[in-house]
Amino acid sequence: MPTHFADRLLTAIQRKGAPVCVGLDPLVERLPTAVLKACGLRPGGKGGPDKEPQRAACALRSFCMEVIGAVADRVPAIKINVAFFERYGSTGVQAYREVVRFAAGAELLVIGDIKRGDIGHSSSQYAMAHLAAGADTGFSGPPDAVTVNPYFGLDGVRPFLDVAGRTGRGLFVLVQTSNESAAQVQGLALSDGSTVGEAVARLVQRWAVEEGSVGSAGYSNVGAVVSPRDLAATDSVRALMPNCIFLVPGFGTQGRTPEQVAHCFKADGTGALVTASRSVIYAYQNQPDYGPDSEDWRIPVERAAGELVDSVRRALPGTA
Amino acid sequence: MPTHFADRLLTAIQRKGAPVCVGLDPLVERLPTAVLKACGLRPGGKGGPDKEPQRAACALRSFCMEVIGAVADRVPAIKINVAFFERYGSTGVQAYREVVRFAAGAELLVIGDIKRGDIGHSSSQYAMAHLAAGADTGFSGPPDAVTVNPYFGLDGVRPFLDVAGRTGRGLFVLVQTSNESAAQVQGLALSDGSTVGEAVARLVQRWAVEEGSVGSAGYSNVGAVVSPRDLAATDSVRALMPNCIFLVPGFGTQGRTPEQVAHCFKADGTGALVTASRSVIYAYQNQPDYGPDSEDWRIPVERAAGELVDSVRRALPGTA
Repeated sequence: MPTHFADRLLTAIQRKGAPVCVGLDPLVERLPTAVLKACGLRPGGKGGPDKEPQRAACALRSFCMEVIGAVADRVPAIKINVAFFERYGSTGVQAYREVVRFAAGAELLVIGDIKRGDIGHSSSQYAMAHLAAGADTGFSGPPDAVTVNPYFGLDGVRPFLDVAGRTGRGLFVLVQTSNESAAQVQGLALSDGSTVGEAVARLVQRWAVEEGSVGSAGYSNVGAVVSPRDLAATDSVRALMPNCIFLVPGFGTQGRTPEQVAHCFKADGTGALVTASRSVIYAYQNQPDYGPDSEDWRIPVERAAGELVDSVRRALPGTA
Repeated sequence: MPTHFADRLLTAIQRKGAPVCVGLDPLVERLPTAVLKACGLRPGGKGGPDKEPQRAACALRSFCMEVIGAVADRVPAIKINVAFFERYGSTGVQAYREVVRFAAGAELLVIGDIKRGDIGHSSSQYAMAHLAAGADTGFSGPPDAVTVNPYFGLDGVRPFLDVAGRTGRGLFVLVQTSNESAAQVQGLALSDGSTVGEAVARLVQRWAVEEGSVGSAGYSNVGAVVSPRDLAATDSVRALMPNCIFLVPGFGTQGRTPEQVAHCFKADGTGALVTASRSVIYAYQNQPDYGPDSEDWRIPVERAAGELVDSVRRALPGTA
């Protein structure tokens, strides 16, 4: 495996034939009965699970490990959102780290979806916590990349760049997010005719080339989070960031279509990693045969991951 | 004590006669010898402390509790930056929560400096983790307020507003930060002649009045983080957010002067809480008598907190 993050990601995508990532954003109240019971939780118990952080963390950990097992053959990468673990305090944070390590053990590229950002003095603590390997931080296997917030400008991002550069890791800077109100800040019109999102895209491209490192395929270890809500805006930021891989959320439950996500790729079909969370990890909730009470709830999860891969493949430039 | 966050903060400021907050951003390598030794760490030991997250967390916890004891009589509020604890994983997060609870026990208003932000689905997990009391999250005494990132627009902030509203707590939304590169995004010029920082200020004022709640003194439980790097910009955002209390970082080590921070207050001397971290908590490092090897390192810390209070008081509108 090459040591540059972007090269590793592209190799993994090629090997699996799928620029697709499954996102782990697990809520205890939506987990299958078997997982809850194994951790001593009663399904549907009112206020039950939340009363016991350690049992909740146990359930999140088991569930994520089972999902990883179910999808690891089909996708090259896993994105794990720390918010859903942090909810349960220190025991949740411990479970997050164990899930990250487990996913790496399943030979998946792992993205820690942490969305951190602060002034440099503080961001360096976050960078050490979430990207630095070793006994330093008690984290034996940190993720291959993390997501970072750009509101502080380069100061807040540089500590992540420093650690990522030293360790062959990467980061994805938030540019154009998938939520309804994203445009309140990201869509503001600038005096030069562009938007805040486009200005951030220009900054990220500059950081990608000048502060990060560009791998052998032309992509930097600095990528961008871009959801294709507005197609004209997406085409614009795709052109502004030629050296950045896009991490593309919003597919599935959040409503982005294959045709929309296709705008995040370059004409050669590279340059993006499409991520879907709820539509895959809770796939058993729409299944009469393998529902949440079934022991075989992994079957629809695996199937949903396969369908995700197929629909992204079909939408890719040059493959329609 | 009134139950509205802004009212509680104003009462506490009035009682102590000081709109001042001490920030806890502790680095293990800068802690006094006595604290390190008590946690089994060797001062200056190369790579020593970091090798043992539990000892590091012990040192952070002890140090912060001692600092809180030294300054609690002089200031109304403490700001605790979770990054410095998160650095050490789950054991660090546990220490953060213990320090938060300890500060509340010392009758200080506690601000959790977490700078979180995500799409609503994920932000609600952060809001529960960091603002919700009770067995739900294993956090028996969460802070009175937290800091929040605005890049996602209202969706990303609303979950914090919901929990804060239910529990008499508050939040401070990042508007104008204290770091060198802040203007790369916050200073972008908009087509209407204002800046991104001013547009965010207008959003925060709207959220403060329409989504948050305004207390009896006219201030909302939604405040803003505003560092007075650029005075014209500061005057502008002060006018744009009449119902917001400003949390004002950058004083001390980061170089803001009393004259600059005065611009964050209204003419009646209310509306801001000035925070200083390194210049207070490491005050022993500039002392020949009570240096880091002294058992009495708390003396310069207490003195620095007193000097901070005096210099802010002198700079306040109407008291010069």
